[in-house]
Amino acid sequence: MAQFDLVVRGGTISTASDTFIADIGVKDGIVTALGQALGSGEHDIDASGKWILPGGVEAHCHIEQESSMGIMTADDYRSGSISAAFGGNTTIIPFAAQHRGQSLREVVKLYHGRAEAKSVIDYTFHLIISDPTKHILSQELPALIMDGYTSFKVYMTYDMLKIDDRQFLDILTTARRYGAMTMVHAENNDVIAWMSERLLNAGHVAPRYHAVSHARIAESEASGRAIHLAELTDTPLLIVHVSTEEATRTIRKARDRGLKIYGETCPQYLFLTIDDLDREGMEGAKYCCSPPPRNDADQESIWLGLQNDTFQVFSSDHAPYRFDETGKLHAGPNPPFKMIGNGVPGIELRMPLLFSEGVRNGRISINQFVALTSTNAAKIFGLHPQKGTIAIGSDADFALWDPDREVEITWDDLHDNVGYTPYQGKRITGWPETVINRGRVVVSDGELHVDPGSGRFLRRRPGHGAAVPAGQLVMEVSPACNFGAEIL
Amino acid sequence: MAQFDLVVRGGTISTASDTFIADIGVKDGIVTALGQALGSGEHDIDASGKWILPGGVEAHCHIEQESSMGIMTADDYRSGSISAAFGGNTTIIPFAAQHRGQSLREVVKLYHGRAEAKSVIDYTFHLIISDPTKHILSQELPALIMDGYTSFKVYMTYDMLKIDDRQFLDILTTARRYGAMTMVHAENNDVIAWMSERLLNAGHVAPRYHAVSHARIAESEASGRAIHLAELTDTPLLIVHVSTEEATRTIRKARDRGLKIYGETCPQYLFLTIDDLDREGMEGAKYCCSPPPRNDADQESIWLGLQNDTFQVFSSDHAPYRFDETGKLHAGPNPPFKMIGNGVPGIELRMPLLFSEGVRNGRISINQFVALTSTNAAKIFGLHPQKGTIAIGSDADFALWDPDREVEITWDDLHDNVGYTPYQGKRITGWPETVINRGRVVVSDGELHVDPGSGRFLRRRPGHGAAVPAGQLVMEVSPACNFGAEIL
Amino acid sequence: MAQFDLVVRGGTISTASDTFIADIGVKDGIVTALGQALGSGEHDIDASGKWILPGGVEAHCHIEQESSMGIMTADDYRSGSISAAFGGNTTIIPFAAQHRGQSLREVVKLYHGRAEAKSVIDYTFHLIISDPTKHILSQELPALIMDGYTSFKVYMTYDMLKIDDRQFLDILTTARRYGAMTMVHAENNDVIAWMSERLLNAGHVAPRYHAVSHARIAESEASGRAIHLAELTDTPLLIVHVSTEEATRTIRKARDRGLKIYGETCPQYLFLTIDDLDREGMEGAKYCCSPPPRNDADQESIWLGLQNDTFQVFSSDHAPYRFDETGKLHAGPNPPFKMIGNGVPGIELRMPLLFSEGVRNGRISINQFVALTSTNAAKIFGLHPQKGTIAIGSDADFALWDPDREVEITWDDLHDNVGYTPYQGKRITGWPETVINRGRVVVSDGELHVDPGSGRFLRRRPGHGAAVPAGQLVMEVSPACNFGAEIL
Amino acid sequence: MAQFDLVVRGGTISTASDTFIADIGVKDGIVTALGQALGSGEHDIDASGKWILPGGVEAHCHIEQESSMGIMTADDYRSGSISAAFGGNTTIIPFAAQHRGQSLREVVKLYHGRAEAKSVIDYTFHLIISDPTKHILSQELPALIMDGYTSFKVYMTYDMLKIDDRQFLDILTTARRYGAMTMVHAENNDVIAWMSERLLNAGHVAPRYHAVSHARIAESEASGRAIHLAELTDTPLLIVHVSTEEATRTIRKARDRGLKIYGETCPQYLFLTIDDLDREGMEGAKYCCSPPPRNDADQESIWLGLQNDTFQVFSSDHAPYRFDETGKLHAGPNPPFKMIGNGVPGIELRMPLLFSEGVRNGRISINQFVALTSTNAAKIFGLHPQKGTIAIGSDADFALWDPDREVEITWDDLHDNVGYTPYQGKRITGWPETVINRGRVVVSDGELHVDPGSGRFLRRRPGHGAAVPAGQLVMEVSPACNFGAEIL
Repeated sequence: MAQFDLVVRGGTISTASDTFIADIGVKDGIVTALGQALGSGEHDIDASGKWILPGGVEAHCHIEQESSMGIMTADDYRSGSISAAFGGNTTIIPFAAQHRGQSLREVVKLYHGRAEAKSVIDYTFHLIISDPTKHILSQELPALIMDGYTSFKVYMTYDMLKIDDRQFLDILTTARRYGAMTMVHAENNDVIAWMSERLLNAGHVAPRYHAVSHARIAESEASGRAIHLAELTDTPLLIVHVSTEEATRTIRKARDRGLKIYGETCPQYLFLTIDDLDREGMEGAKYCCSPPPRNDADQESIWLGLQNDTFQVFSSDHAPYRFDETGKLHAGPNPPFKMIGNGVPGIELRMPLLFSEGVRNGRISINQFVALTSTNAAKIFGLHPQKGTIAIGSDADFALWDPDREVEITWDDLHDNVGYTPYQGKRITGWPETVINRGRVVVSDGELHVDPGSGRFLRRRPGHGAAVPAGQLVMEVSPACNFGAEIL
Repeated sequence: MAQFDLVVRGGTISTASDTFIADIGVKDGIVTALGQALGSGEHDIDASGKWILPGGVEAHCHIEQESSMGIMTADDYRSGSISAAFGGNTTIIPFAAQHRGQSLREVVKLYHGRAEAKSVIDYTFHLIISDPTKHILSQELPALIMDGYTSFKVYMTYDMLKIDDRQFLDILTTARRYGAMTMVHAENNDVIAWMSERLLNAGHVAPRYHAVSHARIAESEASGRAIHLAELTDTPLLIVHVSTEEATRTIRKARDRGLKIYGETCPQYLFLTIDDLDREGMEGAKYCCSPPPRNDADQESIWLGLQNDTFQVFSSDHAPYRFDETGKLHAGPNPPFKMIGNGVPGIELRMPLLFSEGVRNGRISINQFVALTSTNAAKIFGLHPQKGTIAIGSDADFALWDPDREVEITWDDLHDNVGYTPYQGKRITGWPETVINRGRVVVSDGELHVDPGSGRFLRRRPGHGAAVPAGQLVMEVSPACNFGAEIL
Repeated sequence: MAQFDLVVRGGTISTASDTFIADIGVKDGIVTALGQALGSGEHDIDASGKWILPGGVEAHCHIEQESSMGIMTADDYRSGSISAAFGGNTTIIPFAAQHRGQSLREVVKLYHGRAEAKSVIDYTFHLIISDPTKHILSQELPALIMDGYTSFKVYMTYDMLKIDDRQFLDILTTARRYGAMTMVHAENNDVIAWMSERLLNAGHVAPRYHAVSHARIAESEASGRAIHLAELTDTPLLIVHVSTEEATRTIRKARDRGLKIYGETCPQYLFLTIDDLDREGMEGAKYCCSPPPRNDADQESIWLGLQNDTFQVFSSDHAPYRFDETGKLHAGPNPPFKMIGNGVPGIELRMPLLFSEGVRNGRISINQFVALTSTNAAKIFGLHPQKGTIAIGSDADFALWDPDREVEITWDDLHDNVGYTPYQGKRITGWPETVINRGRVVVSDGELHVDPGSGRFLRRRPGHGAAVPAGQLVMEVSPACNFGAEIL
Repeated sequence: MAQFDLVVRGGTISTASDTFIADIGVKDGIVTALGQALGSGEHDIDASGKWILPGGVEAHCHIEQESSMGIMTADDYRSGSISAAFGGNTTIIPFAAQHRGQSLREVVKLYHGRAEAKSVIDYTFHLIISDPTKHILSQELPALIMDGYTSFKVYMTYDMLKIDDRQFLDILTTARRYGAMTMVHAENNDVIAWMSERLLNAGHVAPRYHAVSHARIAESEASGRAIHLAELTDTPLLIVHVSTEEATRTIRKARDRGLKIYGETCPQYLFLTIDDLDREGMEGAKYCCSPPPRNDADQESIWLGLQNDTFQVFSSDHAPYRFDETGKLHAGPNPPFKMIGNGVPGIELRMPLLFSEGVRNGRISINQFVALTSTNAAKIFGLHPQKGTIAIGSDADFALWDPDREVEITWDDLHDNVGYTPYQGKRITGWPETVINRGRVVVSDGELHVDPGSGRFLRRRPGHGAAVPAGQLVMEVSPACNFGAEIL
């Protein structure tokens, strides 16, 4: 009888720290051995000449979710998870998004229903909290955290989603008490609304004005504010989809001071610019997302942030809308910028883009790549060591990359349901050819080998990753007057 | 016939830049000559051995104003202006405070009525804007600026006063267009409300918790936010009553970048600390003001800010409430901290305190003292050169200081209507013995020599001080997409 | 009999703080009256429509001095002082430069001999100390400071001039003890030497490589080092001719921390760039100076530093060499960059350039102009209030500027002996038409009206400006181990 | 036949990134398998309940080396390597120190002679370069790098060792060209010499004045200077034994800017202070090292630097001198501070101290511990992946730690030859009980199990770790004038 269900032989394995050549032995979906000449497997894959990297943990993607404008994403859990898998991912963490008035528990149930029969890879949910009532804060949320929904996202902008600073403090202290991780979309809503109104009044309706209205100051201001609130409550916080040099610097300084602030950025801030929004006609609408792509100097700054640990997580913020009346143009063929479907796709290209332009071009090491695309997200969101690494006892989640394969990106080769890609025509080097999730070969030879619904929900342990070990509320006053942690 | 109405002979005169010995010749309330041996005057004062400094411009004081709690200040324009005069001031700029729903024009009328029969020295008003309706922004405010009410204050905290960021942007752009100066009370309202609620729920009601609830982060956060908004609109902004090291640093960095951000601080942040709020029983209530006094390290930081031009203005923020049921204890003899009358007096001691501890103790030069207490405020608020200096053509506003007079502070010697002083018992050196406003000897030999109502309203020129000469909105996007100034 | 020797009527006078219209009454070379309608003068000048500004204090110029290469400046005290006067200056502070082995006292005697029969305006000397022997530090220098030579300059580069860090500390503590002011040319000698050798070895000999060899890092490194040494010894220090953004920021940060660090910059860093060194043939040699002109971003940074008080002094660093074998080309017609005469002229254009591009273009106020070109230098170097302002008791030193006169710069109109100007062809607005020193009309109607030798030597008071009032050596260790000030 | 030479079963293994439970299979000194139930080994160790961590790479220690004062360290390669092994290390990198005039090749030969018959664990050498002649730079050093001596240390202080900035630039560019790593002892020699002379002249001879003379500014200045030089030459640089908050911040800012600057700190900067130098009599001499221990605030800052990746390496800087006439007191029983043997021991306690106070006290994670004590040094110095991790193909170098063992430190239990420990009496938790190097059990049950001379010299690959992939010399001038990399 074979010792292993699967043996992958002779690949060059990289973790967030190490790189070595070894065989990988998998049993019951778990890596049970790493070694130089492992015994036989039911299934045997030759990986010599390939790079074996932990399966991507896509920690920021919108799948089968209604936007705050009320339009449904182009991808459901079937196309979304398949596209993710083809891009080297084995875990996705989409959002279970609360609309105001909804029970969080109901929301979670809804998204379970959407995902379970469709997802081809493993998944879990971040909660989006838009309505932190007393009941939700004191009852639903603690119970959900205990049930394994240990991360949530809040918005500082969008009228239908945004919370105010006081609600933010309530959420942070709830996260602190129960050991959950908070993510924040940090843009100042008033600034954007004020800019938008004035731009529209002045007749500036073209897509490019989307980027103008999302003033870079709106982002750096809100990032700074969020950090202040996290510092006050001594709670970890992840600032997502950072686009500007100023916001990057704001996060960097917080980390320099020892605050538990994490940062995330996305391909659109490395490879797109405001000029893309300024393309002919409505073409620019394809590149509208929030925050918007900025300029060349920002791109340099974002790269630096990936290099020097200002950012821990590199996500796609996949927000897929077709360039038609179901998505980008839901409000008509020539909508003013405020009415354009907001978001860009990227779930399949996130890892290949960073591999090519980051690793192959010498900007980051292969170990940094692994950390940024998989390990760090797994750690921050309580999935590690089950996910995010190749190690004994971890799920057998990895991809075999051909580091030299040259690819010209075209949407025709992708597996999402969006109809275009912002990176059309770009040439990259390196591709994840075989993708394995819990020992199951999900993708190989350009084919999908598993059934929808075969992905599993990942219940996470509360307190993992985000818990404050021996936290003290940040000193606000002289010791004599300090109120300690009892009011948190 | 005498050449001058008044000649002050042989004093050592200091301006913001120079120090020299000269006679001052005054005619019709104006300085018409400075010289070594001026001709005769109707009135002749020997100032040898005295320091002659420009009359203080007290740019931040609450007089005959209802607080947001609805209690009236202990000082009206009579006691307030007299107390100011005895402290070396010749100009005061109290507030004409709008309550929501009120017409600004009506508010101004109301305060004119309060001041004109009572003030013994010259005065003008800052507008407090709590309700920036479209009508007010587009009609009333521009008209008032044109009429000489060229400065206003906004609050980022207090439920009855606070504006949101969008309103702030509207006000800043109005100030920009018409050349007015905006002041801001920068504390994050949500943070304070959240802290207060939690403290009170935990039974922390003592006065010291006022300081706890006004978390230092509330101040630095709001200061940073205000600066972002001013930067976006490329408009000057004065951040008032700065109390913490962090907020000081935030302002310093904005100035380092060349932004037109100004800072103000007050005696309570140099000479009081949180420990004063922690005195026996309700005694701490006397020291409750917002922001609250902080700690020793903050005091050092505030001194540094006065030395290196982080702060341009040193004001009292005189907010006078008696320690009884009309003021501090209006809600009963043992109110929880939220119900304590909020503010400290200081209009008479502002200049003597800084003179003693700043100039005499070698921390700042006499010229810096003049700039901080008089010249800079006059410039920023459009009163210079009429006020704020001793120069040909300026109003004859100055005080004769005995630099060596030793004074032990006691409220009995003061002229306000407050009943106590936070600085009781403190020993200082230097006192303004004779105070002259437009050539009128207002104070000498410890006596008042002018009638209530003899002070004059100062109508200011719009555009002075605050106007943006060739301003461009701060670049938000690549040049191709820049929208220029047309939407301001 | 006339009341005054001279009355200048109706001009608009600006000091570092104020601007007013007044008559100026002068008696015995002193301003004895300012007023609205002064009595008669022997001499009467109508200044209506003119701006009357304090005479420039040119605090950084090389006149009748041998360079470290051994070449004599093109200007002696006659042409140098005349050129200065035509440019609006009434005081110059050239250097009395020690060569190693020389007695400082002898050096001073030598420069007195050079100046006294020639200078048309007032003057004093900075000492250049290149050889701080024990005798010089303990005997000569203290005695010279007591005799009124209260400032000195040291070099961190040039083999013949540079001192090492230990000597620098000795000089700073001597300055500290006797109340003198130290200036430093801050460039890292090793960096420049290393770069130069490698460039020359690689055949890079053209003038532009002068700028390459004076790496910007050489300047920011040495500036930072000098600040560290000044901080250790708690002694004021002026860093001269700052050219880069990095060095500017280094100074700004020191000032933000409250250190007594001052900064100086010059016209060549506002109006020239590295591209000027790259002109055809040897033309670039005309623009070689140290530090070299940098680039556009540096110019912006230097302007910002002038605006926000990073720089207190704006000097010419006039180092005049003819473009021939006596100066720039002393080593032959095509010298490698290391052999080019090093320095640019600017004593006559310093003030007009800053007036036009700073004041008229709205970058700085007229009061900042006065501070930067006159008052601050007078204060820092112990000449104030005798020099640097228009005030009662001060020397009658001022210039009448036509603020609207348009001038196209050409060397033919200048009065130095250099033969070219780096600013040839530049159009500026504003010119100092009449220049008065101690009541003597030195320049008017484009003519010189005084004799060489009529300028006076200015003996300065030791301790003025630079003395450390209540200084403590910067704390190096825990209080228990602190050694206090006794070892300084 | 057993499949493995050694199997270690059931331990909790941590790398710099992961933690998992696994058996380790070792063959021929190499880790050939990691798995859940590995086959049999010749030798079998039960590690359940133990933490298995990569063997320490002690990258900064002085063994069998004459100090610049000419005294020999108390430890030779026998006692030094044994002490290291008992402290959890499996690799040491002591120095091969050049005295001026010596051939580097000869120096290397000398140290090989000292080490090869004595060391019980693996070793390699950093070169100390004190005399970078042209021959050495162009011939010896490149050849030695090619032979595997790929790192060197330079000193900015000590008269017998220090290089000047120009020599530093030469060394950096040599390192750049051949792919070596440079370490620097960054203290300003002039500052220390100047302070020392003044202190001694004032009669301040006690040990505590050692710390005073090594002014904290001396360290931050030199650190900043070194960074400038590394930036100019675009070469990686490791600043060793950082002791102050200021130097820590200087390194942090360099890393924030993306410079390839690395930092190292040591136990003496976490656990000792200046007060230790101030103990009774000559006792303080035991704590004299350079830089000296500082104060509590510095300790906090150093901890922060360990947490946020300001420091990559945590070393002992083991510099062992007995407290007698052979070491600390070589100049007599009561030497002035300048004559005290300089250095503290720490090779055996480095890892246990950080484990206890860092990991057990919750300041750093176990993965950070591994990175700081082993992995990062292995990477930076070209030993990874052979050393510094537990991975397939790596040397079987690890220690089994009892995480709960409580130890009261006493020198009697240590294995060095120093006679005292600065940490005497300190109680810590956690100890490396079994230490394995290339599969050899070096230490277990408190006993040494291998022979002197059984450690192996590690020849490193040139270019590894330090090579600049696509480096460009830092832009110094406008593109038109840039000289590119050809002069390096």
